[in-house]
Amino acid sequence: MDNCLGAQRSRKIQRAFNQCKVTIFCLLLTVVVLRGTIGAGKFGTPGQDLAEIRDHLYSRKRAEPHRVLEEVQTTSSDEHAGADANAGTNNYNEFDIKKILVDEESDGLKHDPNEPYSLGPKISDWDEQRSRWLKENPKYPNFIGPNKPRVLLVTGSSPKPCENPVGDHYLLKSIKNKIDYCRLHGIEIFYNMALLDAEMAGFWAKLPLIRKLLLSHPEVEFLWWMDSDAMFTDMAFEVPWERYKDSNFVMHGWNEMVYDQKNWIGLNTGSFLLRNGQWALDILDAWAPMGPKGKVREEAGKVLTRELKGRPVFEADDQSAMVYLLATQREKWGEKVYLENAYYLHGYWGILVDRYEEMIENYHPGLGDHRWPLVTHFVGCKPCGKFGDYSVERCLKQMDRAFNFGDNQILQIYGFTHKSLASRRVKRVRNETGNPLEVKDELGLLHPAFKAVKVSSS
Amino acid sequence: MDNCLGAQRSRKIQRAFNQCKVTIFCLLLTVVVLRGTIGAGKFGTPGQDLAEIRDHLYSRKRAEPHRVLEEVQTTSSDEHAGADANAGTNNYNEFDIKKILVDEESDGLKHDPNEPYSLGPKISDWDEQRSRWLKENPKYPNFIGPNKPRVLLVTGSSPKPCENPVGDHYLLKSIKNKIDYCRLHGIEIFYNMALLDAEMAGFWAKLPLIRKLLLSHPEVEFLWWMDSDAMFTDMAFEVPWERYKDSNFVMHGWNEMVYDQKNWIGLNTGSFLLRNGQWALDILDAWAPMGPKGKVREEAGKVLTRELKGRPVFEADDQSAMVYLLATQREKWGEKVYLENAYYLHGYWGILVDRYEEMIENYHPGLGDHRWPLVTHFVGCKPCGKFGDYSVERCLKQMDRAFNFGDNQILQIYGFTHKSLASRRVKRVRNETGNPLEVKDELGLLHPAFKAVKVSSS
Repeated sequence: MDNCLGAQRSRKIQRAFNQCKVTIFCLLLTVVVLRGTIGAGKFGTPGQDLAEIRDHLYSRKRAEPHRVLEEVQTTSSDEHAGADANAGTNNYNEFDIKKILVDEESDGLKHDPNEPYSLGPKISDWDEQRSRWLKENPKYPNFIGPNKPRVLLVTGSSPKPCENPVGDHYLLKSIKNKIDYCRLHGIEIFYNMALLDAEMAGFWAKLPLIRKLLLSHPEVEFLWWMDSDAMFTDMAFEVPWERYKDSNFVMHGWNEMVYDQKNWIGLNTGSFLLRNGQWALDILDAWAPMGPKGKVREEAGKVLTRELKGRPVFEADDQSAMVYLLATQREKWGEKVYLENAYYLHGYWGILVDRYEEMIENYHPGLGDHRWPLVTHFVGCKPCGKFGDYSVERCLKQMDRAFNFGDNQILQIYGFTHKSLASRRVKRVRNETGNPLEVKDELGLLHPAFKAVKVSSS
Repeated sequence: MDNCLGAQRSRKIQRAFNQCKVTIFCLLLTVVVLRGTIGAGKFGTPGQDLAEIRDHLYSRKRAEPHRVLEEVQTTSSDEHAGADANAGTNNYNEFDIKKILVDEESDGLKHDPNEPYSLGPKISDWDEQRSRWLKENPKYPNFIGPNKPRVLLVTGSSPKPCENPVGDHYLLKSIKNKIDYCRLHGIEIFYNMALLDAEMAGFWAKLPLIRKLLLSHPEVEFLWWMDSDAMFTDMAFEVPWERYKDSNFVMHGWNEMVYDQKNWIGLNTGSFLLRNGQWALDILDAWAPMGPKGKVREEAGKVLTRELKGRPVFEADDQSAMVYLLATQREKWGEKVYLENAYYLHGYWGILVDRYEEMIENYHPGLGDHRWPLVTHFVGCKPCGKFGDYSVERCLKQMDRAFNFGDNQILQIYGFTHKSLASRRVKRVRNETGNPLEVKDELGLLHPAFKAVKVSSS
């Protein structure tokens, strides 16, 4: 009974909170529209503002919904936080895990509380090990074509059925979507359903997985992590690998928002490229400490909320932790990090999905950017769980549209298209022919240049 | 109300029918056990009998459950059937579609009723067209290694969410399973969710899809169709491509059961290999006529039930139609059809899933046969629909076990395994190391020989 009343009260508070959010949102929207009228910009600054506002209000990566309303508790960690503030420039390395671990009550963590969390034994010569292996294994080259690195796309979902009955259906459509893009672009897929490290559950689970895959697959040059709620919407766009020849880590984001503002959505870790090498192992090691479940993650969350702009109150998430890491250790990592915004390596769905018809009218696949986004990412929708940040109906409807938008580019190869962006059904748009090899699909995706590799059958 | 009473009566009849089946099954089982005691055999004849019995009783491919109890109607098609019987050897080509189409009432079919159904414009020079294209496109060879044809694995499911809430979760696990096998074996995947031809719905939908893919992808040497309810359970087994160098169509089955007995489960079309070429187009054209929805499919079903051994009453399915085609036109097709039973290109789940622990105890991956089946195929389970031929609980539980059985072979590459075949959770079985490249996974699946291809990066 108490639980019911508590839940009811929670919902009332949440509704009131939501109403306030709407009011504030409307005010901000007015400001932004005025800015847009006064100062022109591309998808640049006003749109950026809008995206930022919406992201800020809606795309919280919450581990559990009830955390929205948690107040920051005054604990000994505040002293700790206070000490940090007085110590000058906040340094990620000074995030004192040891202190937290010693202070905390035992919560069943498996590792020695006197030792910080580790993703695995320290390796310092991975570049050398890898280089040697590649020489000895010429049949597993790390480049499969000119300017074409071997890429492994990594994604995954829970091994449990979704709480929401249709959630698994959207996971299925999402992986089909990735299978299609990757087949066209000569990319392999690893779909993970195993929790390799119980301490790094939730959004942090990708870290042990990524490390494991990099070390197991030296032939992989780039590991492309992609969330299960992100879909490819430009099947013709090839990542400009050459652009990143001097970079090791590519995320969608903006330098100013990360390094100047320390904005918690200054970058997105839902879709990123990580080059295999020592540098990757090092940044994974530097990234991991805020992840371990329990007190460490909670306390880290407070630090992040305090230090980052716009971040709500909830436990540490990998994205915020990366913003913090880069902002506080720019000199160490910044040179090899490319914050890409010339195309949508990650594209926030909220500002894209209502424009699909306009895109079809005015543009074409292959652009990858605001005109035809490479990736539409349904942050905050959580189709697999029970509670998301948006209405279920809007999310699912838009996910169907995004899926069909991308799927149409596959279907047109074979002479079909969806009857509408809302429809599962397909219709023929090109007649069958007795000379199928003379057919050129409009997008040239049948036998794309970026897939052709010279293979020796000897 | 009438519908409810009708449904109740149906269920009572079905229960009685099921009880009779159990009795008959027990009797047959006794016979088989006696045979097994008297005459030894491999998984050969007694096991074959058992599989046959079980398949016969349980693995009906029904389009809809109520068809189980339909009586064969006496109609003009009986005259037609009678005429066929009097005409001597039944010939698939004499299956008189024209007559049926002319007789039938309009049921909304799109094509001209005076013309038989066609998968597309007749092509007679596909081998030449394809050969020319391959010469002109050396970057898309049909062989990607010595004795290694380019293979496209084709599978799919409905674009609608499953009626059964957990159905999509099993489809998701099934495609992950296929992604894993195909990644290891250098095979590409096409996951279909589009109904290309409304007339060829249900199990027949694969025919237009297969034809379309063969003609669009001349670089594909073998198309591997695999049902969504079939899973890979031997990750180390490579199909013996050399064995099929003179064959164009490989299905699991037995010559005697198809050609001598015309047994409707003499072969299985849930997992098969089809070589790209004119021969494939021709057999698809010969296969298709029994497929068109409505009167044609119904009447064809009656022919098949009458002509094939053990077939229950329901509309024509692709598998029965193939048995009939081969049995009645052996001289035309038989030489290029390889009915494989040395390993489980398709493995009926009923006789496999309870033996996984025994397999783990006594054998190892790489065998592909009854000792460690390549494919475990959950015929009759229908996890996506509402009604299957087996208890939902048994099906889902066994599908979890089969998935984990296969998944363990992937996880062991990375030093993990499921806690048990029933558990989603994984545990570590190999410690992390500072020299990951010295690790040899037991099965040699990390960098398998059958995947290595010599790639030129020029």
